[in-house]
Amino acid sequence: MEITVSRKAHFNAAHRLNVPEWTEQENEEYFGLCNNANYHGHNYDLIVAVAGQIDPISGYLIDMKWLGKIIKTEIENRFDHKNLNLDCVEFKEINPTCENIAIVIWNKIREQLPENLKLKITLYETERNFVEYNGN
Amino acid sequence: MEITVSRKAHFNAAHRLNVPEWTEQENEEYFGLCNNANYHGHNYDLIVAVAGQIDPISGYLIDMKWLGKIIKTEIENRFDHKNLNLDCVEFKEINPTCENIAIVIWNKIREQLPENLKLKITLYETERNFVEYNGN
Amino acid sequence: MEITVSRKAHFNAAHRLNVPEWTEQENEEYFGLCNNANYHGHNYDLIVAVAGQIDPISGYLIDMKWLGKIIKTEIENRFDHKNLNLDCVEFKEINPTCENIAIVIWNKIREQLPENLKLKITLYETERNFVEYNGN
Amino acid sequence: MEITVSRKAHFNAAHRLNVPEWTEQENEEYFGLCNNANYHGHNYDLIVAVAGQIDPISGYLIDMKWLGKIIKTEIENRFDHKNLNLDCVEFKEINPTCENIAIVIWNKIREQLPENLKLKITLYETERNFVEYNGN
Amino acid sequence: MEITVSRKAHFNAAHRLNVPEWTEQENEEYFGLCNNANYHGHNYDLIVAVAGQIDPISGYLIDMKWLGKIIKTEIENRFDHKNLNLDCVEFKEINPTCENIAIVIWNKIREQLPENLKLKITLYETERNFVEYNGN
Amino acid sequence: MEITVSRKAHFNAAHRLNVPEWTEQENEEYFGLCNNANYHGHNYDLIVAVAGQIDPISGYLIDMKWLGKIIKTEIENRFDHKNLNLDCVEFKEINPTCENIAIVIWNKIREQLPENLKLKITLYETERNFVEYNGN
Repeated sequence: MEITVSRKAHFNAAHRLNVPEWTEQENEEYFGLCNNANYHGHNYDLIVAVAGQIDPISGYLIDMKWLGKIIKTEIENRFDHKNLNLDCVEFKEINPTCENIAIVIWNKIREQLPENLKLKITLYETERNFVEYNGN
Repeated sequence: MEITVSRKAHFNAAHRLNVPEWTEQENEEYFGLCNNANYHGHNYDLIVAVAGQIDPISGYLIDMKWLGKIIKTEIENRFDHKNLNLDCVEFKEINPTCENIAIVIWNKIREQLPENLKLKITLYETERNFVEYNGN
Repeated sequence: MEITVSRKAHFNAAHRLNVPEWTEQENEEYFGLCNNANYHGHNYDLIVAVAGQIDPISGYLIDMKWLGKIIKTEIENRFDHKNLNLDCVEFKEINPTCENIAIVIWNKIREQLPENLKLKITLYETERNFVEYNGN
Repeated sequence: MEITVSRKAHFNAAHRLNVPEWTEQENEEYFGLCNNANYHGHNYDLIVAVAGQIDPISGYLIDMKWLGKIIKTEIENRFDHKNLNLDCVEFKEINPTCENIAIVIWNKIREQLPENLKLKITLYETERNFVEYNGN
Repeated sequence: MEITVSRKAHFNAAHRLNVPEWTEQENEEYFGLCNNANYHGHNYDLIVAVAGQIDPISGYLIDMKWLGKIIKTEIENRFDHKNLNLDCVEFKEINPTCENIAIVIWNKIREQLPENLKLKITLYETERNFVEYNGN
Repeated sequence: MEITVSRKAHFNAAHRLNVPEWTEQENEEYFGLCNNANYHGHNYDLIVAVAGQIDPISGYLIDMKWLGKIIKTEIENRFDHKNLNLDCVEFKEINPTCENIAIVIWNKIREQLPENLKLKITLYETERNFVEYNGN
């Protein structure tokens, strides 16, 4: 029987949506205000959900303090108070849409998790817009 | 690989729960305060979740501005500041329970969405009571 | 030294904003969608704040269970799942704007409170619009 | 077509995480502050989600007032303002981790639900840490 | 008797904290991550509170639709999806700390409000950090 | 002109309300479930509000990182994951009601703050019950 354990975290970052292959006008039309060349920013709220079997002795699926450290090292330290386009090598080649940021985060945490655990990422760009990704 | 993108919206409406085939007493017993003949109301909070493949160029699953317009045209303009029982043809024949409102909303947005995208509706009638529907 | 103790409550109601002395057109222009003759509704969130000196023995300003009962009897039982315009004598003569509802609530709780305690009401009509009233 | 209806509830409880088979030092290392022998506590927020077919006449999946009573009787009355380790027979043999509390709650509500309805429990130990369990 | 009416709004912006008269090292030491030369960003949540006497006929202190338009024109259109340091003349000479942004917003809305109404601004930079300013 | 800057924090603790001078029955009648001899617990949410003049150079009222450290050292490290009655000398002689906890917190932070700054504490015991204290 499977159980899912989730932990919330957050980071504050600047970004800009832009596709280099498109003209300035195409980018403006498609991304609107998000295309502002001088960047804008968000408080990103992140939920990391891990699923698997609980340990019958400890009653834990996973040590949350360990998961919290992984999120701090892999995600918060990399992205918090950064400009995603300029400061983060992860977004040199890909557009930092909420969808792409969620996939990047999923990949980084996936690498650290034991293989028998499933992973799902929920990323809020604003209170009204959010993305979910589970690798399938 | 599938990703889900969600957008929140809201509308404020009056409604009354009542089954015309039942007696007044049966309706009162079953629906309690929600059967009040003079109506009561709610701030409905809506989450529209759309799932599919992201576009590898733009990094978008869907243009959120477009989705926001669909929600405004199809849902908010129809139901906001309305009496669901009296003003909305959708509830002439069906009881405006939270379940039925969610199904009506799903049908209206489903018609506007490209076929390759999946749709799930979450509708909060109050902070404590909510409904989810994905058409399956 | 003064301390303030607050308790949240809520009620769901229908209402309509309308001034009988005005023409239909004047009401429509001034109140917009809130003037809908068939009513709309809200989940009202209420915060009742009481201020005074704490009792040095019990460490309570006021027994919250007692305050909770007052709010239930005086406010929730009267207004929850009601049509404020049609079901509630309090709004026969006054327009049930958020401002006026807050004042009505303040008056009802003020009558029940010991005189040495101060009272402030905060009333949310939606998550975005709210009113505060303290009788001064 | 399946619909899911959810209801939120909450209870406030003290607990302590400890495995009797482990030494004091092992418990301290593994559970950290949660191992405090004098207990600490939480406001647990609970979401009970029930899924199935809606009744075409009433438009209800389930009577929420009935579900609310089950949650009150089976969960809130048992666990609210209790010490889970000392007062609750359910945790005499199992460690009251958030995972185990969610499973205990699922089992108690499962017994009361009609067989044709599915059940999922979400339990927040804090705003940042929560668990989901659906019995599969 | 005075009543206070509040309306929430929000805008998403990039910024950087920096005092030109200080050395790079002084700025880094004082502002830490907020000094990042490439900017970071926030979802700013704004509460505009207006206080005064309600109109006895309409039952409104102020027309919220009018206030909403002022907030949109004066604040959201200016600051949403902008880089406060680069795009906004208001912060050419002053450091865009949460304190200073709140004061700038207060001044802009103050100019539009009738003199007999009081004004208070609450500005959340994150869920955990916020500022209040009422001009006194 | 005065500005107020606030920072949120939280701690999770067990407690019990009891007046030693009263009989068991008096305590049970007055405090109800909160009198449980085995303790219960809460996630306490804390808002520390500091008011004064902003520094015209930095644009800060106070360095939030410094305030965050004070809150961590003086409040979180003392009370988080503790039994307030058994583990905390502050509540040996006084009943750990929400009112008294707020006053204790105010006193501890007041000692650390420069004299020219004002201080107000808001403490949530649950989402529905909270206390405010400013020392006046």
